Amino acid sequence: MASNKPSVPKGTRDFSPVEMVRRNYIFDTIKSVFRKYGYQEIQTPSMENLSTLTGKYGDEGDKLIFKILNSGDFWGEAEKQQQKAEAFQFSSRSLLPVLSEKALRYDLTVPFARYVVMHQNEISFPFKRFQIQPVWRADRPQKGRYREFYQCDADVVGSESLLNEAEFVLIYQEALSKLGLRDFTIKINNRKILTGIAEIIGKPELIVDMTVAIDKIDKIGLDGVEKELLERGFTSGDIEMLRPVILLKGDNAEKLEKLKAVLEPTSVGKAGIKEIETIFDYLARLSSSSLPNVELDITLARGLNYYTGAIFEVKTNEVAMGSIGGGGRYDDLTGMFGLKGLTGAGISFGADRIYDVLDELKLFPEQSSEITKVLITNFDQDAEKYALPLLFSFRNKGIAAELYPSAAKIKKQMAYADSKNIPFVLLIGSEEIQSGELTLKDMKSGQQEKLTKEELIKKLS
Amino acid sequence: MASNKPSVPKGTRDFSPVEMVRRNYIFDTIKSVFRKYGYQEIQTPSMENLSTLTGKYGDEGDKLIFKILNSGDFWGEAEKQQQKAEAFQFSSRSLLPVLSEKALRYDLTVPFARYVVMHQNEISFPFKRFQIQPVWRADRPQKGRYREFYQCDADVVGSESLLNEAEFVLIYQEALSKLGLRDFTIKINNRKILTGIAEIIGKPELIVDMTVAIDKIDKIGLDGVEKELLERGFTSGDIEMLRPVILLKGDNAEKLEKLKAVLEPTSVGKAGIKEIETIFDYLARLSSSSLPNVELDITLARGLNYYTGAIFEVKTNEVAMGSIGGGGRYDDLTGMFGLKGLTGAGISFGADRIYDVLDELKLFPEQSSEITKVLITNFDQDAEKYALPLLFSFRNKGIAAELYPSAAKIKKQMAYADSKNIPFVLLIGSEEIQSGELTLKDMKSGQQEKLTKEELIKKLS
Repeated sequence: MASNKPSVPKGTRDFSPVEMVRRNYIFDTIKSVFRKYGYQEIQTPSMENLSTLTGKYGDEGDKLIFKILNSGDFWGEAEKQQQKAEAFQFSSRSLLPVLSEKALRYDLTVPFARYVVMHQNEISFPFKRFQIQPVWRADRPQKGRYREFYQCDADVVGSESLLNEAEFVLIYQEALSKLGLRDFTIKINNRKILTGIAEIIGKPELIVDMTVAIDKIDKIGLDGVEKELLERGFTSGDIEMLRPVILLKGDNAEKLEKLKAVLEPTSVGKAGIKEIETIFDYLARLSSSSLPNVELDITLARGLNYYTGAIFEVKTNEVAMGSIGGGGRYDDLTGMFGLKGLTGAGISFGADRIYDVLDELKLFPEQSSEITKVLITNFDQDAEKYALPLLFSFRNKGIAAELYPSAAKIKKQMAYADSKNIPFVLLIGSEEIQSGELTLKDMKSGQQEKLTKEELIKKLS
Repeated sequence: MASNKPSVPKGTRDFSPVEMVRRNYIFDTIKSVFRKYGYQEIQTPSMENLSTLTGKYGDEGDKLIFKILNSGDFWGEAEKQQQKAEAFQFSSRSLLPVLSEKALRYDLTVPFARYVVMHQNEISFPFKRFQIQPVWRADRPQKGRYREFYQCDADVVGSESLLNEAEFVLIYQEALSKLGLRDFTIKINNRKILTGIAEIIGKPELIVDMTVAIDKIDKIGLDGVEKELLERGFTSGDIEMLRPVILLKGDNAEKLEKLKAVLEPTSVGKAGIKEIETIFDYLARLSSSSLPNVELDITLARGLNYYTGAIFEVKTNEVAMGSIGGGGRYDDLTGMFGLKGLTGAGISFGADRIYDVLDELKLFPEQSSEITKVLITNFDQDAEKYALPLLFSFRNKGIAAELYPSAAKIKKQMAYADSKNIPFVLLIGSEEIQSGELTLKDMKSGQQEKLTKEELIKKLS
């Protein structure tokens, strides 16, 4: 516990060069797909006015917002406050508005809503934006849960078209495939289907209880779910009606047929079915022979307090891991800031989890354009002088190159190339200077070959 | 002053899609050059322990650090503190350690030093890193000064070689040229030359006063500088000796010759001259016929409380603007965290100012791979069905493409393409569906041409 040893705040992380190459690989891949589908990047400030964030994430969320202490004489302000109102009681809650006016971004959705309302006159709707920035939460840190982490969101606002939902499926499919994942499932559900089911049994107020219970089918089985439904206020009669839904099986078409029968009496339920069908129809027209791995999953019930239509969740089947993505449609993103009636839909990628999946499956590419291609060793002053115009020529041809900056021991120079994953080392000694043929060592295979300057440039380009 | 209207904290900014394309263009260009010279990216957390930052930026800097309010019952903690020490006086200063343990990054240098010390056993020195991340300062916001802004730094630690300094000049030269700047000056000076001059007149303790006064030569002229030197404690005799230095003129070689004569009696001054000469020699060997625009500038005196060798500053001559970059060598980066004797050198780019320069000179590229290449209009359901496989084909060939998601008025769809700077719009009506020849409109020239699907893909790829 040496007090002098520097550390980072718990729940935060440094990213080393190797980690950055890998993180950039993930983010660049996802960005390229977002852009291909017409999504454009925006960024919002790390800090928002506290009033912009408060009350948007529930009471628990509010507690997890990192607040920024006001600059200047914050205590003087607190005392003024007390003088104004004698009844002022000092407490963390009462002091907060005096001590803090700003807070760190808690997610990307609320700042995006604020952005849309603030810039509504400059925006041409539908507005398709993506945003990849860190967010901060004063959560208890634990494995895989950080106080600072990146979110990676794409949202469209101002378009009701289900083409957007279909394209989100394709974005997931393309981005995850590009990252090398082979076996993953894009689960889809629709809030209206869930609402329809709750309506049929005449208990719309219990929709959340119902979905929470049904969601446990894989863990606790049919008996467990039925027991839980009873405890949550459903009758045996309700459960009887729910059974075909709880036990829904088969491919997407089969599930849809069965659901149609159950939901026939409810207009909202039928609307949900129709939406799913439309999305599947778009997908069929927007794909070649191989359809994306989409699976209608009636137990998918995330974000029920804001999603109003489609709900998405993505899981990898290659590694035991929670969801690596999710999203859905929300009918009123910007109402909280006074702009009503703007519908939107969005998805996000769980970058940290995707990192862990790629790491476990060894899917990160070995080579990267972010890494120096060749290190020229530095034997002595003569060799250095010989090397400098060569270094210029390499860089002039766009080859990332380094000359070791001093005539250190060759072992040290080799270790340097090794630690940076530099694939080639060029050895220049007096012999090489005389012959003009230089020795290039392939660091992976260990093989060496003699090459002229022109041959070197050709090989390394 | 409608209280409901959302806003961002003063001194912070949203970045729109157009601004992001331009900012990415600047950062991507600089990054590609950093990487070409062997610099690797790292990232550090946005928040550091307050103790990591306090005392590193002087008293004024400490005041400008944004502190994060502790989570949980911060006031309860303050009261406990008082109970422990009855003499505890409530004030902003005394309460700070109780209310806040973390703070936002104030620059990239101190977190980098902390990183090097924490990870010293994993790092293979020399360690060449770059870092492009936001920093936060509770400064009074004004034109061109923000409370959140990006810094863009490259540093090498663990290498004394002046090759590093020469490469920094080349990095500036290459990055700024790539961005389209044609007339800029990379100014170089050496702290040892300044120390040598102060030594000769026997007033080393007045080195800062001397450089501050000399630095004003352009603004207040020789008389003004001499007057200020007198006020700052120099004698007429000192000023007599300083005059050749204050009036130094000519090209780099001429200046070096004159300085050599003046500095002959001081070993430190001569060492400074030698360093500049070595850097110039590296530059001559590392360049083709055209040498970089480097200028020895003896009045350059930035960062004197940390730079110990070379000092850099970059100015554009095409627009009235402060410096767009700067840096230098420091002998003890990590000493503040207990790791002594590690020398380093670094430079930074002023991204916000470079943005303004490129904007004023209209140097941002019109086309960007970040922007959708073609928008397919949506006339009606039939046209949409016809368009979907086409949309798939475009994307399958890597072409960023969008289908307008509803059959809105064509004028609205065109305005959408316009606002997103989409260069081509594909018009599909019943005529086009029948003939199989589609109408492609070039949004810039306004010209239209009829093309088959294969011709379209060829043209847009």
